[in-house]
Amino acid sequence: MTGGAGFVAANLIPRLLNGGARVLALDDFSRGLAEHWAPFRNEPRFAGAQVDCSDADALRGAIERARGEDRVAEVWHLAANSDIPAGIRDPRVDLKDTFLTTFAVLAVMRDLAIPAIRFASSSAVYGDLGETAIHEASGPLEPISNYGAMKLASEAQIRAAVESDGIRADVFRFPNVVGVPATHGVILDLLRKLKATPDRLDVLGDGTQTKSYLHVEELIEAMLFIARTASGAYNVFNIGPRDEGVSVRRIAETVRDAAAPGAAIRFGEGGRGWVGDVPRFRYDTGRLAALGWQPRLGSEDAVRRAVAQIAAQEEAVRREARA
Amino acid sequence: MTGGAGFVAANLIPRLLNGGARVLALDDFSRGLAEHWAPFRNEPRFAGAQVDCSDADALRGAIERARGEDRVAEVWHLAANSDIPAGIRDPRVDLKDTFLTTFAVLAVMRDLAIPAIRFASSSAVYGDLGETAIHEASGPLEPISNYGAMKLASEAQIRAAVESDGIRADVFRFPNVVGVPATHGVILDLLRKLKATPDRLDVLGDGTQTKSYLHVEELIEAMLFIARTASGAYNVFNIGPRDEGVSVRRIAETVRDAAAPGAAIRFGEGGRGWVGDVPRFRYDTGRLAALGWQPRLGSEDAVRRAVAQIAAQEEAVRREARA
Repeated sequence: MTGGAGFVAANLIPRLLNGGARVLALDDFSRGLAEHWAPFRNEPRFAGAQVDCSDADALRGAIERARGEDRVAEVWHLAANSDIPAGIRDPRVDLKDTFLTTFAVLAVMRDLAIPAIRFASSSAVYGDLGETAIHEASGPLEPISNYGAMKLASEAQIRAAVESDGIRADVFRFPNVVGVPATHGVILDLLRKLKATPDRLDVLGDGTQTKSYLHVEELIEAMLFIARTASGAYNVFNIGPRDEGVSVRRIAETVRDAAAPGAAIRFGEGGRGWVGDVPRFRYDTGRLAALGWQPRLGSEDAVRRAVAQIAAQEEAVRREARA
Repeated sequence: MTGGAGFVAANLIPRLLNGGARVLALDDFSRGLAEHWAPFRNEPRFAGAQVDCSDADALRGAIERARGEDRVAEVWHLAANSDIPAGIRDPRVDLKDTFLTTFAVLAVMRDLAIPAIRFASSSAVYGDLGETAIHEASGPLEPISNYGAMKLASEAQIRAAVESDGIRADVFRFPNVVGVPATHGVILDLLRKLKATPDRLDVLGDGTQTKSYLHVEELIEAMLFIARTASGAYNVFNIGPRDEGVSVRRIAETVRDAAAPGAAIRFGEGGRGWVGDVPRFRYDTGRLAALGWQPRLGSEDAVRRAVAQIAAQEEAVRREARA
C-alpha cells in the first residue's frame, strides 16, 4: 500500500489484516503519520517502511525486501498530494506525489508481475460539470485543479497499463471523505478555529457550496466490495452518498453545535472556497448500486458522525498534551 | 514552438513566418530533424535551437535568450513522442517527451507570463469507443496506449493551468495526419517495403482497420483558424475529415498503384496492427464545422495526395544519395 500512513490507509489496513492479508505499508511521511501504524505495529502480518513512492527503484527494493518468497497479490495505490491549494501554489507537488507515484507503481508492477492495482482517484477528475448528474462515462473530463489533473493523468496511465500489461485495475472516484484520524479538511479547520475563538466561526466562502460527503468507514466498505465483486479488467466506480450533498453552512452549524453552541457563524463571499474548488456537483452512484453496494449514511449523517469523532480526537490530543 | 523540428512544425513554421510572426523553434532532435529548418534558416524572424523541452530551466533559458525585449505571445506545444509502439515498450518515452514537456512548458509560461498555449493533442485520448461518433465532450476517456494516456494527462494539466493561471489554451485533437516531410507512418513504411521487394507488399493486420486521415496542410489551416476564431479560454476541437476514414487495404492499394502497380498485396491477421492501436473510430467534427472550418479533402484524397508527395520525397532522397 502506497500512502500507507495516510487517512484512508489507517482505516483500510486493519480491515485487510482482519481479512488475513499480509500488508506492507509504504509512505514518505510528507503528509502521512507514523503514529497511524501504532495500532498494528505488533501484528506479524504488518510491515511499514519509509519510502519515496515516486522513486521506482526505492519502491521495488522495499517490496522485494518485504515479500520474501511470496508473490504480491495487489497494490493499493493511495499515495497522493491531498492538499489541493498546495498543488495550485506549486504544481510540482501533485506531479511528484500523485502522478509520478502512479508511474513508479506501474513500473514496479511490471517488474514484479503484480497483477492488480486498486487506485484512489477522485471526483475532481470531472472538473466543474455544473448541474449534470455525473456518472462514470460522463465527459468532458476537465479538471480545474492540478490535484484533479494529476488524478486524471494517473487514471489514464493505469488504463493504458491494463491494455499493455494485462493487469486488473479498480479505480475508485472518491467524493469528499470524512472521518478519523483527521489531519486536514473542513471539519478539522472549523473545529480548530472554534477552539481558538470560541465565540465566533469564520467560514471561507458564502456557505452555499454543497458537496457530497462519505464517511471513511463506508468508503472502505465500498472499495473492498468493488475489489471482490467487479468483474472487468478495468473498473471505474464513483463512490459517494446517494444524496446531493450538504452545504458548508450545515457543516459549520454541525461543528458549532458540537463544539461551541453559542458561537456566531460568519460567512465570506463567493460560492467557491479557493481556485480549483468545484462549488457544487451531483454524483451519480448508480453503477455501484447496480453492483450491489449502497451507503447507509447520507452526507449530513457522515458529517455529523465525523464531527463527533474528530472533536473527540482533538480532545484526546489536548489531554495527552496536558499529561 | 516545441517539437519545432518535427513534421507538423515543418508545415506550420512557414505559415507563421508568412503571417509576420517571429518564430523560435525548439527541439531535442530525438525525432525531429534539423534539415526541416533548411528552408527558413536565413529568415531573420526565425531562430531554432536544440533544447530538451522537458527541462524547464533549459526551456526558459532558450526562450529568454531569443526573445530579447519582446514578450512571447503564444507557445505552440508540439513536442511529443510520436512513436506509439516505442511508448508501449518503454513508458518513460511518453512520460518524458509528451507529459513532462507539457509540465515544463506550463511552468515556463507561468514564469514568463506567456498568455496562450496551442497544444497538439490526439484522438488517442478517447481510447476505443467502438462505433460511437466521438465528439469533444464524449466520455469516458480511456486511452489504451501510453501515447494517448500522456496526451490526456497533458490536456488535464493544461485545463488546470487555464483555471489557476488565467491563460488561454487551444487543444487540437488530431486524427491521423499525413503529408510531407514524412519521417514515419504507414505510407512511408509501405513505400519502403515496396522498394525493398517490388513484387509484393506485406501489410500488418487484415487490412480492415479504418481510420480518419487528414492532410497536414489542412491540419495547419484548421489550427490557425481555431487560434484566431475560437472565443473561449479553453477550446477543445476534434480536427479531422468529414468521412469515417479509409481502410488500410485502400491505403495499401493506393501505395501499390503509385509505386509498383504489379505488386501483390498480402495481409496479416487481426483487426489491430499493434497493442494500443485503436482499430476503428468515428470522429465527430461538428464543433469545428460550426465554428466555420471544414476540410476540402476526404481521408482517401488526403492519403492519395500524401502518397504522391512521400513517393516524390523518397525519390529525391535516392537521387541525392546517388549524386
